[in-house]
Parts: sequence; C-alpha cells; structure tokens
Amino acid sequence: RSMATSARKSLTIGLIPADGIGLEVIPAARKAILAVQSELPAVKFIDLLAGWNTFTRTGTALPFETVQALKECDCALFGSVSSPSRKVAGYSSPIVALRKELDLYANIRPVISVSADSASTPAVDLIVVRENTECLYVKDEKLIRTDTGKEARATRLITERASTRIGKIAFELAKARPRKLLTIIHKSNVLSVTDGLFRESVRAVPTLPGIDGKFDDVTIEEQLVDSAVYRLFREPQIYDVMVAPNLYGDIISDAAAALVGSLGVIPSINAGDNFVMGEPVHGSAPDIAGKGIANPVASIRSAALMLRHLGYTSAADKIDKAVNDTLAPAKVLTADLGGSHSTIQVTDHILGLIQQ
Amino acid sequence: RSMATSARKSLTIGLIPADGIGLEVIPAARKAILAVQSELPAVKFIDLLAGWNTFTRTGTALPFETVQALKECDCALFGSVSSPSRKVAGYSSPIVALRKELDLYANIRPVISVSADSASTPAVDLIVVRENTECLYVKDEKLIRTDTGKEARATRLITERASTRIGKIAFELAKARPRKLLTIIHKSNVLSVTDGLFRESVRAVPTLPGIDGKFDDVTIEEQLVDSAVYRLFREPQIYDVMVAPNLYGDIISDAAAALVGSLGVIPSINAGDNFVMGEPVHGSAPDIAGKGIANPVASIRSAALMLRHLGYTSAADKIDKAVNDTLAPAKVLTADLGGSHSTIQVTDHILGLIQQ
Ligand SMILES: CC(C)[C@H](C(=O)O)[C@@H](O)C(=O)O
Ligand SMILES: CC(C)[C@H](C(=O)O)[C@@H](O)C(=O)O
Repeated sequence: RSMATSARKSLTIGLIPADGIGLEVIPAARKAILAVQSELPAVKFIDLLAGWNTFTRTGTALPFETVQALKECDCALFGSVSSPSRKVAGYSSPIVALRKELDLYANIRPVISVSADSASTPAVDLIVVRENTECLYVKDEKLIRTDTGKEARATRLITERASTRIGKIAFELAKARPRKLLTIIHKSNVLSVTDGLFRESVRAVPTLPGIDGKFDDVTIEEQLVDSAVYRLFREPQIYDVMVAPNLYGDIISDAAAALVGSLGVIPSINAGDNFVMGEPVHGSAPDIAGKGIANPVASIRSAALMLRHLGYTSAADKIDKAVNDTLAPAKVLTADLGGSHSTIQVTDHILGLIQQ
Repeated sequence: RSMATSARKSLTIGLIPADGIGLEVIPAARKAILAVQSELPAVKFIDLLAGWNTFTRTGTALPFETVQALKECDCALFGSVSSPSRKVAGYSSPIVALRKELDLYANIRPVISVSADSASTPAVDLIVVRENTECLYVKDEKLIRTDTGKEARATRLITERASTRIGKIAFELAKARPRKLLTIIHKSNVLSVTDGLFRESVRAVPTLPGIDGKFDDVTIEEQLVDSAVYRLFREPQIYDVMVAPNLYGDIISDAAAALVGSLGVIPSINAGDNFVMGEPVHGSAPDIAGKGIANPVASIRSAALMLRHLGYTSAADKIDKAVNDTLAPAKVLTADLGGSHSTIQVTDHILGLIQQ
C-alpha cells in the first residue's frame, strides 16, 4: 500500500483544521511532523479552508481553491467539521465531498487500547477498514409530496469495483498482522443484493488474477452489523481486521473507539491510490472547543498513520512511540482520558519525547 | 397505547417458534402465560410455522396459512429465525415480512440492567423505539451489470406518515416515564433529506392537532447514530427513550443489549394499531440450539410486554416480577449470564415464583 518515497524531494502537506477543536488539534499534529522532519524530505505546509465556519463566511463549506490546492499536495490533514442542527440550503459535509472528490476510497481506523486504563477493559487491537465512497454516502436523495404527506428516498449504492478494492486493502492489512483474521461486516439477511454484492466481492479477492495464493493464510469470517456491535462490546478481542461498507464502518469504528477510553485517541487515514488524508475520528466537539483541553492524540496519530502510509516508517514509529509513552507510563492525559492536562501540555510532552 | 381488554372473551395467541433456540424459548413463554391465566380471558394457543426450517421443507419461509391464521389471532409470539449464509433464491426473512404484512410499525425494546451484575456495569434503563416498516427494510434492491462489474442499489424509504406514527408512540412512552426524555437518533449530517424528514416529523408530533400540549413536559434531544453508539457504551444512563429509523434501531438495540449482560434477557414487541407480536431480540443461536441451555427470559419478558400492551397489566406484572426475582436475588441463570442452569430450570423457577 505504501507509495514509493524515494522519488519525493519535498513533502507538501495540506492542513484543513476546519471547525471546533480541529483548530486546536491540527496545529499539534503539524508540530509533531516538524519534530520528525529529519526523517522526511523538505516539509511544506499549506493552510486551507473548509467547514461550517467557512460556509457561514463564504457560502460554501468546501471552497474550490481548497480542492485545487490539495491536488498540488502530497497528502493532507483534516480536523473536524461542525454541522448545522437543521438542514441549511447549500450546506453539505466537506469531509464526505473530499473523500469522493479525491477518490479516497479506504478509511482505515486502527483502534488500540490505551494501556493506561487496561485493568477493567479488555485489550482491543483491531483495524476498521471502511469503504469511503459509496453506500448511503452517495447522497442521492429525493423528496416528494403525496396525499399522505412527504416521502423521502435515498439510494444505497454498492459496486463490485469499490467492494473489491476495499477488500484488497483489508486483505493486505490482515495479512500483515499476526492473527491474519478478516471479518466482513454486512446485513445480507436483509440487504441480500447490496450487502450480498459487498460480501461476495470481498470474499472473491483471494481468487483474483495476480493474487496467486497471497492471501491463503488469511482467515475470513463474517458478522451481521447488529451482532458485530453487540460482540464488539462483549468480546472485542475476537476482532482483528474488520471490513465494512461505509455507514456500518462509520458506526463500528465509533463503537470500537468507545472501548479504548476515548474517541480522542483514534486516528484514521482516508487513502486513495494517489493521495492520503489523515483525520482524527472524533468530531468538532463544540462543547469543549476553544478551551485548550481537546485531546491532540488522535490528530498526532493520524499524522503518523499518514506518514506510514507514504512510506516514512521511521518518522511514524518515532511519533507513535512518543504518543504511547505519553499515554501509558507518563500518563500525561487530557480530560477525556481522566487527566487534567491541556492540549498544549500533552503535545509538548510528546514533542519532548520525540526530541530525546 | 393499550387496546381495550374488556370486550375480549378469549385470547387467541399465535406461536411461531421458527428456528434454533426459538423452539426452546417460545414453549417457556407459553408456560408463563398459562401460569397467569387466572388474570386473562380464556387463552387459546395456535402453533404456526415459519423460518428457515420451514423453507427447506416447504419452499417458503412464511407459509400463507401462517399469515392467514395470525389474522384470526389477538396477538402472537415469534421465536427467532436462522438465515442462510449465502443468498438462496426464494428465501426472504419471515420476521421482516410479518412486520410489514401485519403493519406492526413499532418495535419497542426495553433494555434494563440485570441487577445481578450491577457492580461493574452502569445501570441501564432505556427503551429503544424502532420504526419497523421502512428504511432499508423495504428491500427494494436492484442489480445491474456495467463495464466495470456489478452495481447494486437499495432504496431507503422514510415517510412523514410512518415517522409521525412512530414518533407518537415514542412520545407516549417518554411521557409515561419519570425522566420524560426522548432522544431522536439519525444521521442527518449525511442524509439530510431522509433523516431530515424523520427528525422533523418526530419533532412535529407535539404540535399535531389533538395533542393539545400533552407532550409539553417531554424533553427532546438528538444524537447522530455513530455518536449514539459511542455514548451508549460510555454513558448509557444519559438515555431514557430513544426513537430511531429501522436500521439504526436494529443496531442501537443490540448495542444497548450488550450493556446489560446478555441479549438473552431483552424482550421486544412489534406493535401495530390492531395487532401485537412479542419477539425476543436475540437470534436463533445455532451454536447452542438443541442443548437445552438457551435463556428463556427474553421470550418470557416478551410475553409479558405483549400482555401489558394488550392491557393485561396485572398478568404482565406477575411475570416480570417473577423474572426479576429469578435473575437477581435467586440468581437462577443460564450460561449467557454466567450461570449454569438449563432453560427448563430457569423457566420452572419463574413459574414457581408466579404460583407462590
Ligand atoms: C462528519 C461525518 C459526515 C463523518 C461520517 O459519517 O463519515 C464522521 O462521522 C466520520 O466518521 O468521519
Ligand atoms: C433477523 C433480522 C432480519 C432482524 C432485523 O434486522 O430486524 C433482527 O436483527 C432483529 O433485530 O429483529
């Protein structure tokens, strides 16, 4: 999956803090990248706009300039976006649009226990691989008026092509892990055609031309999405890599995040064949925004995951190790993890460990 | 919500054990109803067929005779259904079909902690009110072949009419509880039209003609489905009554069930204006079927919930009290709750307490 790093003379990173705590945690991730710049080609950051704030000021949540500028970047970090509590004409989620526009078809979300709080909760170490471009996220919706009131319809799209390519990513990830277990999440007892196609396409990956037995050592299991959420809560250790259509992946990754202390530590990347965008799984958290207490870990880990995906393994390792040592032995924690440290304090502790 | 009981001279109950442990737990529920028959009009049971077993024998998972016979019943109990692991031509889930055929539009799932295991887990006491007839469960799916492979589409239908009627049920239930809190679950940041209509229709219930301020004391909150699953796990006590479109309700109720020890204790009813069908939330559990160790509590509580819905409050109270006393002080528990009692032993203990 890694893109060749050798050819790159410089690394241009788009930064899109967007809304709420995104404005506090993306700067932390930027500092973490700068702290490992000796491992990277010349790093250049480009600040870009998107989100609800941008919408209220400019009338669009995703300015055309942002999309254009991203096409000149090697990768990007996206913060978090607020949504209006009611439908607002012209407003549409910029993160969903960016995933589609840049064809970032794989949303990869590793969920690993914070060892600090391990005593009571079972150890979790899994990756949710979420298809990122279709399912109900195609946003093909219609409203009509009938004699008995309004009727709304949305289209759920599942294609063989998108299911196969996400399946490949999931098999690659499963193969690289000790347990080599892949669980396909679906609801084909109700959606036999769409989820049936998703399941069959993923199952067919090992038989594709060119695979040549590569995935023969990966064990394939299946789970209905409702049972998967139930079992995630009851026995999360049964999962290794989970692959899911878009909406189930959205829900499953939040469910898994709940098991490890806080959404504030869960990173993700949105990856395509030619671009990768890091993104903390948490939202814009308007209740704590501006207070300087947001957890920067999810964003810093997203930066590491993005660098790892680009092939900068040692840079990513350095960041991840500093984060883990900050969470576990040092217990320098923000409030979401039961600590009382600020965003800046946690970030500085991580930076200090990187520089040691 | 209760249907008038006075007119009823007899109570005809359809029994559809269907597959797997359904065959063991529905007979337990039947015994519990017989144990409170002094509180009921003359009870008559009718045994009916449906499910995967029925499909393999007869070629249909829901015989026409079953649907016809149910129309002569006052209510019914449905066990659990197995589904084939791959798409089988002609097979389709009978429970989904029954909900639609009998217009059982409200799926009501109370989730309450088993006090027996209260020390470690937070107390949960909530009701999931799930719309039961539309969303992706309309099963309007199509498959086409294109140059790049197969493409499948499913329709997600949300109507004002169905959202309003489930909203009414949810407001009624919330009003009757001490906290009077109703949380609307949706994903309108992505599905602004369909989930927007669901949310607005539920929110509009208090302003409908004839409501006359009845729901003024109900507090309305909202939560995106992904956050709701996260928060259910982290702080389940924040929820009281949750109302959701069909698929989110399916997932949310399994998530809530995971918090209280076992799916084996969670009852539900599928309720329409003229019929009610009790149904344990658990599945057919092929791994333990036939061993006599399935938990009968979900089915017995479903019988009580069904009787309560029909207006037989004292019969329902007797069953519920006997179940609670069996779970908590007596700790007569099946394996799913960490006990070692059989289905029959737990059932007999409940029956013994009812007869005291
Ligand atoms: C903000 C929202 C559109 C988004 C999604 O549903 O994909 C978020 O929940 C996520 O998981 O990244
Ligand atoms: C068996 C299946 C079709 C059903 C559903 O999804 O409704 C089940 O999961 C339930 O919750 O009753």
